[in-house]
Amino acid sequence: MTHDLKCIAILHGAGYAGGELAALLLRHPHVEIAAVTSRSHAGEPLAKAHARLRGTTDLTFTAPEALDPSGVDAVVVCAEHGKGAAAVHALREAGFEGLIVDLSADHRLAQEAYDATYPAPHPHPEQIADAVYGLAEVNRDAIPGATLVANPGCFATAMALALWPLAGRAGTAHITAFTGASGSGARPSPTTHFPTRDGNARAYRPFAHRHQPEVEQVVGDAMQIQFVPVSAPWTRGIWGTAHVALDAPLAPDAVATLYQEAYSGARFVRLSPEGLPELLPVVGTPFCDIGWVSDGDALVVGFALDNLLKGAASQAVQNLNLALGLPETAGLLP
Amino acid sequence: MTHDLKCIAILHGAGYAGGELAALLLRHPHVEIAAVTSRSHAGEPLAKAHARLRGTTDLTFTAPEALDPSGVDAVVVCAEHGKGAAAVHALREAGFEGLIVDLSADHRLAQEAYDATYPAPHPHPEQIADAVYGLAEVNRDAIPGATLVANPGCFATAMALALWPLAGRAGTAHITAFTGASGSGARPSPTTHFPTRDGNARAYRPFAHRHQPEVEQVVGDAMQIQFVPVSAPWTRGIWGTAHVALDAPLAPDAVATLYQEAYSGARFVRLSPEGLPELLPVVGTPFCDIGWVSDGDALVVGFALDNLLKGAASQAVQNLNLALGLPETAGLLP
Amino acid sequence: MTHDLKCIAILHGAGYAGGELAALLLRHPHVEIAAVTSRSHAGEPLAKAHARLRGTTDLTFTAPEALDPSGVDAVVVCAEHGKGAAAVHALREAGFEGLIVDLSADHRLAQEAYDATYPAPHPHPEQIADAVYGLAEVNRDAIPGATLVANPGCFATAMALALWPLAGRAGTAHITAFTGASGSGARPSPTTHFPTRDGNARAYRPFAHRHQPEVEQVVGDAMQIQFVPVSAPWTRGIWGTAHVALDAPLAPDAVATLYQEAYSGARFVRLSPEGLPELLPVVGTPFCDIGWVSDGDALVVGFALDNLLKGAASQAVQNLNLALGLPETAGLLP
Amino acid sequence: MTHDLKCIAILHGAGYAGGELAALLLRHPHVEIAAVTSRSHAGEPLAKAHARLRGTTDLTFTAPEALDPSGVDAVVVCAEHGKGAAAVHALREAGFEGLIVDLSADHRLAQEAYDATYPAPHPHPEQIADAVYGLAEVNRDAIPGATLVANPGCFATAMALALWPLAGRAGTAHITAFTGASGSGARPSPTTHFPTRDGNARAYRPFAHRHQPEVEQVVGDAMQIQFVPVSAPWTRGIWGTAHVALDAPLAPDAVATLYQEAYSGARFVRLSPEGLPELLPVVGTPFCDIGWVSDGDALVVGFALDNLLKGAASQAVQNLNLALGLPETAGLLP
Repeated sequence: MTHDLKCIAILHGAGYAGGELAALLLRHPHVEIAAVTSRSHAGEPLAKAHARLRGTTDLTFTAPEALDPSGVDAVVVCAEHGKGAAAVHALREAGFEGLIVDLSADHRLAQEAYDATYPAPHPHPEQIADAVYGLAEVNRDAIPGATLVANPGCFATAMALALWPLAGRAGTAHITAFTGASGSGARPSPTTHFPTRDGNARAYRPFAHRHQPEVEQVVGDAMQIQFVPVSAPWTRGIWGTAHVALDAPLAPDAVATLYQEAYSGARFVRLSPEGLPELLPVVGTPFCDIGWVSDGDALVVGFALDNLLKGAASQAVQNLNLALGLPETAGLLP
Repeated sequence: MTHDLKCIAILHGAGYAGGELAALLLRHPHVEIAAVTSRSHAGEPLAKAHARLRGTTDLTFTAPEALDPSGVDAVVVCAEHGKGAAAVHALREAGFEGLIVDLSADHRLAQEAYDATYPAPHPHPEQIADAVYGLAEVNRDAIPGATLVANPGCFATAMALALWPLAGRAGTAHITAFTGASGSGARPSPTTHFPTRDGNARAYRPFAHRHQPEVEQVVGDAMQIQFVPVSAPWTRGIWGTAHVALDAPLAPDAVATLYQEAYSGARFVRLSPEGLPELLPVVGTPFCDIGWVSDGDALVVGFALDNLLKGAASQAVQNLNLALGLPETAGLLP
Repeated sequence: MTHDLKCIAILHGAGYAGGELAALLLRHPHVEIAAVTSRSHAGEPLAKAHARLRGTTDLTFTAPEALDPSGVDAVVVCAEHGKGAAAVHALREAGFEGLIVDLSADHRLAQEAYDATYPAPHPHPEQIADAVYGLAEVNRDAIPGATLVANPGCFATAMALALWPLAGRAGTAHITAFTGASGSGARPSPTTHFPTRDGNARAYRPFAHRHQPEVEQVVGDAMQIQFVPVSAPWTRGIWGTAHVALDAPLAPDAVATLYQEAYSGARFVRLSPEGLPELLPVVGTPFCDIGWVSDGDALVVGFALDNLLKGAASQAVQNLNLALGLPETAGLLP
Repeated sequence: MTHDLKCIAILHGAGYAGGELAALLLRHPHVEIAAVTSRSHAGEPLAKAHARLRGTTDLTFTAPEALDPSGVDAVVVCAEHGKGAAAVHALREAGFEGLIVDLSADHRLAQEAYDATYPAPHPHPEQIADAVYGLAEVNRDAIPGATLVANPGCFATAMALALWPLAGRAGTAHITAFTGASGSGARPSPTTHFPTRDGNARAYRPFAHRHQPEVEQVVGDAMQIQFVPVSAPWTRGIWGTAHVALDAPLAPDAVATLYQEAYSGARFVRLSPEGLPELLPVVGTPFCDIGWVSDGDALVVGFALDNLLKGAASQAVQNLNLALGLPETAGLLP
């Protein structure tokens, strides 16, 4: 089957997620990049912000206000919370009716949960109802034809995929999960200063991370999430454990069956045959790896993904593919 | 108060713990090093194995069989499980009646627990009754005057100190804890190969780590330990979380009081005023840092220590000090 | 232009270079992988040795002796020095007449230079004359139609590309260059043990590295190479400086012109517009970056490449493409 | 011999050098810390800025203006260029006549060289004549009794010690040297942002580093310095090579003799018996390690030191010791 080339724009593409997205789309067989916008880099080559891309493209950044969405099939919005909703609003005001994939947190939660989680009230709550939560492994049927896809958070993706098959079978999930410094973005900060990050581990916002409500939305009220996020001394990747007490003991085979059935058609979830997964095999890939050890009603589920790929850019491509009618793995797997 | 110089020998001192121990004892005000033994480095300067020590000492390694324990106040045994017991046996056979601090696992557990945990039956079970478990914060009164001190394991020290104040107040502790590559010793292995360790996280022996029974011995049967040890991409340090469900909710102040009372006189436990501790502030120090966050009956305790110091060499010096009647902090704090 | 699929086998593909090569060929549009051999992993999935590839291919390793070269267009040999020549010999004995790209050192040097450099005499010196040195930027015209291509060494590629435009204009090049731990291969060793590699820098074989004669072969006798190779605390990448005294002062523009002319059509050499290049922008890419600063007759040339890609696997693909009549950048650039 | 306790103040002690200095002085047998000042941390415990020190001292930071120098034997000034001179000026204005050790660059160079190197003219050039360059290995006799000691720069210390024995015997020194991220101080910046520092190497200010004139002052006009400084992916340590063409060939023994004679009484220079030194053995120590390989008139000298110790804090203690009549190694070696 052949596909027409889809024309994709990246809004605010000078950050880490934007760079990964550009790299993926440049070699996507059914996509052409219409524009990559950046306020601070407008007019400069992409390589100015993404040095790795030098020699692979002649694209230059477009100023956001110069983006012409006519002829564009989809826009991917890379923005912080609050600014994603504003960007979507502006695109619709400008008459853009095509697909939007929003990497910000602004269309992931119901309004009430959003307002309880983020510092300012949602600027455009009426948009939330239009959005589909873009976790295809859980929600695949809702994505084709959607016009607004909320790309899940990086930690949320990992935890939701690890726990979703257990929904209804366990009470509390005790999670400790590590993330790399690229998760904090390209702007230097005290927590990403090399001398304080290298060789260190530092918990932050225990019990209060903003991705927790996303996971609760996926796994339902029956399971409580106790989540300790930790800054890890590496650049890319999320790795963690969820200690779960099952409501009733399950034989190891039964646990395996739960996961295999949940992810039978999921090309981007790799179930780990040998227990908890390692981090390195997912870095640079679009996969989330999941594994577990169990002992009666005691279960530990391990999870690993690349925060910039399955936690951001490759998941956005996966959502683009599904929403635009392309093969789900196009541009992501050989 | 002045103290006579105590004369200390280090048996099998060419590994990482031996190097740290030598560095600490070289600047200990009340100690002189009688000998450091090594089979493979006999006759060579200490700096051959511990390059950092070059220029600080003229000591050379002694062959183990050439060690003359007469005039020696204490011997510190650095050995793997099975070999520590043999070394103690040989020292006693040779007529040495002074203090032995054993860094191996061989005198930490009751015989039954040892035989269930380690691959071979205990070679000298009759020695176990002579040994005191050298976790001074829990067991301080038992150490002065002891002739055989079992130096605790690195993970065991961290977990036992984190959980001991909760004994009798909680059921299961769900622990995920990371350790640096120096914990695997100086011999190269696939899990410490730089390309597979850097930027990686890898769980090993989940639910089955050998330090678990040590912790259970300290905290008692009432608390169950579910422990996932993880190889971390750094050289020194243990950092972890214990998720605990309290039997009854405790106000944050009450949790704080529990810990403050448990460690009121403990110079090497630092309670973290601001939640879970970071790793870096303990690296290179003799401290174990402990902090927590709580929410009703949900409690997460964080812990951090340097596996080669409070998890090995500085704890050995602390035990030497206490057993020999020196100030507990001599050679360790200014 | 359309191309028939070329059928490629990888001999001894369980190491780092083999894994990179498999990843590149799996998404190469004009290639299909005939077989990947491994003695120790025969019958196992590729992901057993290359965990990152799980979920991207169903290929399993073939035993080397089970490789059937009929129908194969090219074989890439991943082997250590001495064994590459033997593998080429065996393939020819078995009647294989197609293209061989040899990643070992065995066909890079004239016999005399080889015998002076490597520990054992060349096992099949008669093969050397058949080989073309596969540094396309220097030697592009010789590669199309070749039947045996010697893939250059990783350090040699970087240094030769940095210095070749200066041939005839400078005497001695004083080089200090760093390499990542993946350059030592997948087998653990004392120099790749994490505690001795992380945060360390260690020179080895100063003035005596085996890649030096390769560079001398490219730049000619007029330039002397003084090379200090250094083990660096990272996994991937070569980065170094060459301090050169020019025979006559050159204006900065004239230096720039030399390099621009030398590499005008070279898609995999990126000249650095802002002085010495950084390492990170080449990691994971098929590029060698080159930059310089000059001051009269004093010139420092900096160079950077990914030792597993432009220093091994992507250069092998570049050579496959050129020798088989495919576009040089196929499978490597978007 | 017993010594009266010397009373030392640290001015602007909240940065990395100040933390190291406090740690060293806390365990110095002949020193007591009078005060550590910090504008932003005034009134807070030292551990607020230097977490590692918690549990080792009850000292709190003093506001700089509250420092009372009466009764103080020496003040160590930790400040950036321009501010060191101002601090010295203010101390003298306030009537302080004791010893000052200045870690800033302000008293290291003659006025002309200073003004040509740093962005603003020297604010108090009349102070320069009072200062002694505190590189004891070169300048030991000038330090006892000095009232103002200019503590050398970190790179300058390493390069000057590596090259000084060659003064008069060589023309140009081609230097490439790496420094850790702690060299940039405690304030986050783009070049110390973890994702851009880890696994990277990046040259900066080639031929134009500010420490170059310091080295030239030590080695004299006869030797030219071509210096490429590089940001390295580690926290602590300077490691580099100097490629030198000797005016006349020297046998390896003769080179060794040059260095052994130059540093015969130098307790903090360790000559490397086995060629170029490694970095790790100096980290956390007060040593500068130096080694070399030679081949006729070609010589490469390697050097390594801890930028925060021999490159800053331990060298300041060494200077304090010498200037105050204490043993040179007090508080630094066992």
